[in-house]
Order: sequence, then structure tokens, then C-alpha cells
Amino acid sequence: MFFYTVINTHIPGQKIILLYLARMAQTLPYRQLADFTYSIFKAIGCSDADAALATRVLLSADLRGIDSHGVARLTGYVRLWEAKRVNATPEMKIVHEMPSTAVVDGDAGLGLVVAPFAMQLAIDKARNAGTGWVSVRNSNHFGIAGYHAMMALDHDMIGIAMTNASALVAPTFSTERMLGTNPIAVAIPAGTQPPFVADFATTTASNGKLEILQRKNAGTPLGWVQEGDGTDSTDANILKKGGSMLPLGSDREHGSHKGYALGSIVDIFSAVLSGASYGPWVPPFPAYVPMPENMPGKGLGHFFGAMRVDAFRTADEFKDHMDNWITRFRNAKPTNELNKVLIPGDPEREMEAERMAGGIPVVDSVIDELNAVGQKFGLALN
Amino acid sequence: MFFYTVINTHIPGQKIILLYLARMAQTLPYRQLADFTYSIFKAIGCSDADAALATRVLLSADLRGIDSHGVARLTGYVRLWEAKRVNATPEMKIVHEMPSTAVVDGDAGLGLVVAPFAMQLAIDKARNAGTGWVSVRNSNHFGIAGYHAMMALDHDMIGIAMTNASALVAPTFSTERMLGTNPIAVAIPAGTQPPFVADFATTTASNGKLEILQRKNAGTPLGWVQEGDGTDSTDANILKKGGSMLPLGSDREHGSHKGYALGSIVDIFSAVLSGASYGPWVPPFPAYVPMPENMPGKGLGHFFGAMRVDAFRTADEFKDHMDNWITRFRNAKPTNELNKVLIPGDPEREMEAERMAGGIPVVDSVIDELNAVGQKFGLALN
Repeated sequence: MFFYTVINTHIPGQKIILLYLARMAQTLPYRQLADFTYSIFKAIGCSDADAALATRVLLSADLRGIDSHGVARLTGYVRLWEAKRVNATPEMKIVHEMPSTAVVDGDAGLGLVVAPFAMQLAIDKARNAGTGWVSVRNSNHFGIAGYHAMMALDHDMIGIAMTNASALVAPTFSTERMLGTNPIAVAIPAGTQPPFVADFATTTASNGKLEILQRKNAGTPLGWVQEGDGTDSTDANILKKGGSMLPLGSDREHGSHKGYALGSIVDIFSAVLSGASYGPWVPPFPAYVPMPENMPGKGLGHFFGAMRVDAFRTADEFKDHMDNWITRFRNAKPTNELNKVLIPGDPEREMEAERMAGGIPVVDSVIDELNAVGQKFGLALN
Repeated sequence: MFFYTVINTHIPGQKIILLYLARMAQTLPYRQLADFTYSIFKAIGCSDADAALATRVLLSADLRGIDSHGVARLTGYVRLWEAKRVNATPEMKIVHEMPSTAVVDGDAGLGLVVAPFAMQLAIDKARNAGTGWVSVRNSNHFGIAGYHAMMALDHDMIGIAMTNASALVAPTFSTERMLGTNPIAVAIPAGTQPPFVADFATTTASNGKLEILQRKNAGTPLGWVQEGDGTDSTDANILKKGGSMLPLGSDREHGSHKGYALGSIVDIFSAVLSGASYGPWVPPFPAYVPMPENMPGKGLGHFFGAMRVDAFRTADEFKDHMDNWITRFRNAKPTNELNKVLIPGDPEREMEAERMAGGIPVVDSVIDELNAVGQKFGLALN
């Protein structure tokens, strides 16, 4: 199902372009997407609270412009539940702890629910110990790392979130997919300035950027992906042909060993510390892909950290200096007067304001999938 | 002073090449360099213990093949002491703490001495709280980050070390030097396998790599540096002409905003948390460069972390899985059968064994500097 808008213009061809664009995506109000998403999570058996939380986490990706990690993944989560890889009513447990640490077993729950539980635990630990660090096993994909890291901000804490993911990335000097895009998010509170929020895959480009190019039938820049034998590639579909993504840095000469190290650190903190699966054994997101053999741990792993800023200096001093840091960097001399220097989190915050007010564009293929999954449960998107 | 060796060969020109190489560097035994370095630190007023520690930390860079951060910097430290920017007898103080955190004021001491003090405090905190996190102000350059991170390994802890440094790096979309090469080191213990030790600048290439190209009169690959106006450059001397280094990722299309974010996180954790100077206000290493005006904090900043692995799961379980992780990654399919996949820390460990046994090559310009500084104090290198 899709709607379209015809606008007449003086410019030949523009009518066709607008029709084409209208066919590509619809813009839906946040509320409408949220109500539908909530009802789907309820339909698979989540509690009211868990369905509301999972909805908030999932759609924070759409609001912040990280479309690959938002509602586009909803049907994927449902398929994982159908394949009995996701437990809609998990009993999450703290299996080990010290004053500043814990390991959580997510009982195969939605990462969208397990991750906020674990991040809250990190925040609670930080209250007493100054910092809190929680490694999680037996979880699933947790949406965007930035959501969880940002939970710390209201408590005047620095938040850190990372997760491993199924293997798409080849280490430097390798042709084998050994690591996920393993993102890192760090959220740092400021005073009058908006917070610093970095949230990035440890690859040159995220999988979401590949998907955008696939839809456009466009190639990638050199340095994003390689063929199955390690040859340079610009094919956005190369992952379906045995290729792999490249670590941040692209090649050895430009520091890909650093991106490989970062992705590895995320994998080890998330999974070797907690007892989740790691490296090439991380469970795949598509439910139709068989689970790896001889998995060395349970499910996906995450790692969360919270640090009270006043465990180091007074919160007021810290925030004043963050304001000074942010202001100084924002005013760094730009390469070109039209392109100001950005603070990590700036583009996502602007996008969030825009989309909360004006709606979220959802591509038609995703709308079709949402409608199909809705029909299963007698639920309608529109 | 330099020596040379003449070897006759059948190949025309080879004699000249060998003479040239002999003129470029001498290979000195570790013990000889260490004795000289110790005597210099004693000569500027360090205690026996501090001189021995500073020597060990400084020369760990030469042993591990990071020549730019080792004995080549000894005369730079002496000049900072002469300029009264380094205090040889610091009274380091814990100015604030919680069970898992502390801020240390380094009293303008050598970073080579302040950093191990702070890292030891992080380890001590971790013993009781599970983790320890120490931010440091009023310090100086601390040698290689990896040395400090590796202090955790003997305690079955993960070690983390980072530092800010004087500004050479332009943020994405900027032409202004705002960040140092701000390295991150993470050391992770294993069982029968050697530990995982990542230690890298958050730039495409380290300043040390630029220096090697300068000595060879060679250009850099594209993506390492830019001209003062932001134009692409391959000039290894561009920093002397108003240019800047580029964050890991090189350009926006290849993820330089991620390298910029990483360098920023290092700066904020090291300096905004502790009360050190940050961004473009970090004190320069060369003593002849005037201090920045309106510095917002005291000296350089560092950040250290220690995490007991058994604060998450038993140390034996953790180390068994690290062995499995390392073995699996080392056996990842290589791009080329001659070039195996490396684990972070492999090249440095091999270099250390080689140089401890066979000596450390020191380029003649550094030998000349060491002899000159030795003469000041009546000390001889040879």
C-alpha cells in the first residue's frame, strides 16, 4: 500500500520525480508509529512496561535519523521471536557483582529491554561507587547504543554503551568476517550547551549506509567494503556475495588496525567479560540464518558504563568546562564558511526535533513489511 | 659522533648504502641507554626511585618499536625542566575520590612518574570496588600509553590508559589544530596466549610516522595530513607550514568524524574530568613554544582505568575464553598466505624481545642530542 502526491511544476520531469519520491517513502507521525510498534510488542507477549520501553528505544533510532536501527527492524524482532530466539517475558538476572560491576543474564530477552535494565544498574552502582560497569550476556540487538548511553545524562553522569553484533567485518589482513560493526556510544553532560553524544560503528561506514546505497543502486566509496578474496570493492551489495566490511581506517596504511582493535575491544568487553558469544559466533539478526555451531557463550553481549562527573570534580565545574569545550570546538575555524564544525550529537539532535514535529519518513518496503506483520496479529498501521 | 662499518660486496653501490645506513643509526644495548637515561633523570633532581621508573617507562617505547616516544624525547624532557615546566620532585596528591574513582594532581611532575602513580591507584581502587578510574591533571607527557595499561595485566585486570597532548589535529570540517594525537591503550590479560595490547593514536597515523617520513624525505599517503587551508596534502613537513593532522578515518566519507569523536573523548576524560588544560590549550611539548594564553586548567591530563576480570566472571573462565578469542582471530583467513592476521600487541612484543636481546637502534641526530645533554651534566653516553 502506498499513497502519492502530484505537484505540477514548470520544470519538465519534476512531476515524475515527485511521484517517484512519494512511492519511495511515507512520512508518518511519531505517535502513529509508536502506537503500532507498542501493539506489536504487546502482541508477541511483552508486558505493558516492556512494550512501551522497547518502543521508545527502537523509535529513538528513527527520530535520530539512524533509520536502519529503528522501526525497519521491527519485523526482524518478530521473526526472531517466532524462531524462539527472543523471549518476550525474560527473567533478567544479576549473576555476579562487585560494588562497581555486574554481569547481567538477559534470558534471551529483547535487547531493547535488557539494555536499559543493565544501563540502569550501571547508574545505580555509580551512585555509590562513583562508577558502574555492567557486562551483559544472553541478549539480542539493543537498537542504537546512543539511547542507552544517554540514560546517564539526567543523573549528571557520563554514559557509555557498546554491543557486539553478528560478524560482517574482516580484521586487517583478513578476508574473513570476524566482527560485527560493534558500535560505541559515549554521552557527556554539559551545562547550558546540549550534551556531547558520540555514537558510531567501529567500521568505516555503518551497515545502514550500505543499505541506503543499495536502495539507490549506487556504489560505495573505496575503503568501505572488500570482495571475498580481499580485493577492493565499491559494490554496496558485496556482503551478499561473500564480501566483508572494513574496520574504521579502511586499510593498514590509513589505520584499519585501529578500527579492528576498537571493534575487538567492544567484542571482548561485551562478550568475553560476560559469557556471551563473540567474534564469528555471535548469533545472526536474520532469523532465517542458522545459528553458528559450537557457540562459546550465550546470545549477544553488551557493555555499559556510568561515571558520576562529581566523582571527579563538582558537577558545576565539570559542566562549565564542558560548555567551554563545546563552544571552543564549535567555533574552530571551518574548512569552508558554510560548513561549521559539529559537536558529536548535533546532527542527531536536530533530526530528532524535526522528526518529532514533522514525522518520520518510512520507506515503502518497510511500510509493506509492517503492514504484513500487523495482519498476522490483526493490527493495522494506518 | 658516529661510527661506521664498511662491508665490501659484489653489488655496485651497496658499500655506499651501508655507509649511509651506518651513519643514520647506531644500535645500543638496552642497559647502556638505560644507565645513561637514569643518570640524566638523577642529574635533574629526580629521586633514585623516580629516575629508575621514568627510565623504565621511557625506554619501554624504544623496546616496543615506538621510537618517537622513547629516548628521542629525553632531551625534550630536560628542556621542559630547564624551562621550569617540569618539576623533578613533585608532591602528587589525590584531590578527590570515591570508592572507584580519584583525581590526581601531578604537581607538574614528569608524566613518566605521575602516570604509574595514578595507574597504581586505579589498580588499588579496583581491588575493592571491582574497577578503578583515575583522571589526572597538572602532568606532562607520559611516554607510551601501553606501558601504563599493561601495569594491570599482572593483577588479572584489564588496563586502560589515555592522555591528551598538544594540538596538532583538526576536527572534521576544520582547518584548526584543536586536539592532540590523543592515544588510547587497552591491555587485556589472557591465559596461555600473550595478552591483547592495543595502543594507538586516534589519528590516521601517529606523529612518529610523520617523523620517519621526514627523515627519509618522503611524502605521506593521502589522508594523513592537510594544508593550512584544508587542502589535501602529502607533505610530511606540513605541520611546520600551518597544516594539521587528520583524525582516524581521514575524511568525512571514511569516518573521520569517528576519529574526531574518539580524540575528543580522550581529551574530555583526561582533562575536563580532572581540571587539566584541554583542546587547543594543552601545553606544548617543545619548551621553546610559548604556553597558550588563558589556559582553562593545569598541565596535561591523563585518564586511567583498571577492571578486575573476576569482577565479572572467574579469572580462569575469562582467560580461557580470551585464549579462544585470540586463537580464533589469529587463524582468521588471511588476505595473503604470507601475511597472517595479527592480534593487537603482537608486533610490539616481538620487537621488544628482539631489541632487549640485540639492542636498540638510535638515529644519529638523537645520539648527538643525547651526547650534548650528557655534556651539560658531565655524563657520557658511551
